Amino acid sequence: MTKTIYIVGLGLIGSSLALGIRRDHPEYRIVGYNRGEQSRMIALEHGIVDEATDNLSQFAAEADMIFLCVPIQQTIRFLEELSNLPLKEGVLVTDAGSTKEAIVEAAETYLSARNIHFIGGHPMAGSHKTGAIAADVNLFENAYYILTPSRLTQADAIPRLKEVLSGLHARFVEIDAAEHDRVTSQISHFPHILASSLMNQAGDYRKDHPFTQHFAAGGFRDMTRIAESEPGMWTSILMTNRASIVERLAEFGERLKDIQQLIEAGDEEAIWQFFDQGRRIRKEMEIHKRAGVDSFYDLFINIPDQEDTILTILELLRGISVVNIRINEDNRADIHGILQITFKNKEDLERAERIIRDQTSYQVFVD
Amino acid sequence: MTKTIYIVGLGLIGSSLALGIRRDHPEYRIVGYNRGEQSRMIALEHGIVDEATDNLSQFAAEADMIFLCVPIQQTIRFLEELSNLPLKEGVLVTDAGSTKEAIVEAAETYLSARNIHFIGGHPMAGSHKTGAIAADVNLFENAYYILTPSRLTQADAIPRLKEVLSGLHARFVEIDAAEHDRVTSQISHFPHILASSLMNQAGDYRKDHPFTQHFAAGGFRDMTRIAESEPGMWTSILMTNRASIVERLAEFGERLKDIQQLIEAGDEEAIWQFFDQGRRIRKEMEIHKRAGVDSFYDLFINIPDQEDTILTILELLRGISVVNIRINEDNRADIHGILQITFKNKEDLERAERIIRDQTSYQVFVD
Repeated sequence: MTKTIYIVGLGLIGSSLALGIRRDHPEYRIVGYNRGEQSRMIALEHGIVDEATDNLSQFAAEADMIFLCVPIQQTIRFLEELSNLPLKEGVLVTDAGSTKEAIVEAAETYLSARNIHFIGGHPMAGSHKTGAIAADVNLFENAYYILTPSRLTQADAIPRLKEVLSGLHARFVEIDAAEHDRVTSQISHFPHILASSLMNQAGDYRKDHPFTQHFAAGGFRDMTRIAESEPGMWTSILMTNRASIVERLAEFGERLKDIQQLIEAGDEEAIWQFFDQGRRIRKEMEIHKRAGVDSFYDLFINIPDQEDTILTILELLRGISVVNIRINEDNRADIHGILQITFKNKEDLERAERIIRDQTSYQVFVD
Repeated sequence: MTKTIYIVGLGLIGSSLALGIRRDHPEYRIVGYNRGEQSRMIALEHGIVDEATDNLSQFAAEADMIFLCVPIQQTIRFLEELSNLPLKEGVLVTDAGSTKEAIVEAAETYLSARNIHFIGGHPMAGSHKTGAIAADVNLFENAYYILTPSRLTQADAIPRLKEVLSGLHARFVEIDAAEHDRVTSQISHFPHILASSLMNQAGDYRKDHPFTQHFAAGGFRDMTRIAESEPGMWTSILMTNRASIVERLAEFGERLKDIQQLIEAGDEEAIWQFFDQGRRIRKEMEIHKRAGVDSFYDLFINIPDQEDTILTILELLRGISVVNIRINEDNRADIHGILQITFKNKEDLERAERIIRDQTSYQVFVD
């Protein structure tokens, strides 16, 4: 039996969800809501949705499943709006917000009087770009897609949702909404505050120490990259995950006091342990692994600054699958002139290493 | 007139300095000290130095200029050793340590009784790799090379040093040693503590919140990358720049308290300002510029996960100089499948964009 899927918000996430759903379910009718005209038009033109509206109520009553893919605060407002609209019996509502407890609570508040299923959702994927124009059927491939059940999640709701989303090829994980918010406060929300605080601190420091403006190198650049994110989105995240973030903030303040004491005491051994422990923990984190791949297979090639060097190297490696490629050289202040090529497996890496060693005079390193 | 240059420590920095010096001064006699045999042998075999020793005193009396390119604590010990060795009248001694005040003070303590010049030095370059095997004549090209004069820096010492180092093509900047240590505490040393503290915090948190181990994505990865640096080097840096680092630590603690209060108060407007200010400051930092280049010219191409896609694209762009290239896709949890190519100027960028649009069906973005 065909279904009507209602994608509310045709930005990057909503549009990519639509494409992923359609991949396994071409028979579904997918309809969309978007306030702004541009992404609505693009989604229609590119066949991302079959019909589109700027009026939330238009398709609400026809939907078997509703995906709220709008900012957190708007998600909460739409949950309230939906509670006042005619909806199908047993409709499944879900969302894509970065925090989950506030949204699950809103759903339980607004939707519990009726036969409506709700599952909190957080597909952990994103892109440099936004809007329906950036829609990508592969956006969620191998990405974690977190599901946070609620009091409104009946037994069959999660299998129903996963079946609709099978074409995403995502990795679904079920977690309690509050636990989701605690974990993301540690690995995402609080680090964001650190990055912005460091940036603000450096900005103040440069007033009296102008070289601050110029000497920042690779480490500082990496640590503050996320400080350039969109302020509105992060303000919403902080506002809807206050308790967990404040707890991490305060705990971190204690850690800084401890390390300050070690430095003041000149406790060389303890400082060494502090750095060494951080290094060991990082090596254990999944951060080091690629989706579905146990480890990296990296080749490092010391290349001159010449035209078409990379092309020459890739031509030599033609037919060997390249997972990633980058030049580590920015500003020459950290890492210099090293072309790093990542392969899928050890065999490809060894083949590539042999080719570069035999056919070029470039220095080659394998980690 | 020929000179004898004594490179003490034939690691990446010392060996690359030797190559850079020789580029403009092939007539110089360059001799080297290294405790470990491997880099000493490589430096001899590759002609990086003319002669090499594992006994510091062997070439000390013959040197016109001595470069101490060893860890900070060893630099200080060698300054003391040099004070007890016969040296040429007017010999110029310099170093390459990451902190400067402790080293300049040691030089003034040990060397001031004699006619010895000393200039603190900090070439701000490095590499993924270490040892003489990674020596690179271009390592310091366009990099900042900081010089910190001392009481032992007579008027002609800095011009003499710059003349010897002309082949490095570095950007020399003179700064007071204490100011160097203050600026680097803000943009390098203290951020290192932040990264390691965050890593340690996440390591503790995962004990009760196991998903912490798995969900960390791009932002967290970037922020903690430097936590994998060698603990010994960073312990030495902390031990020799304690006052500045402690001052930044304490000041940062106050900032965290302030933002904690904003979150507790739910002051949405102030939180937004906090994030927005961080974003604005980062856009102003030199971090955004490449050496000698005013801005980036980036093309973003949405590419499928297929063999030889990058090769195909680079073949289309043959003859256009590529400054950098990377796929932003790690773990698909943050940024996905976007090939980012950086060009030298707007013309090359526009030419490349036209070619990709006309000759492929890939989505193309320009920032």
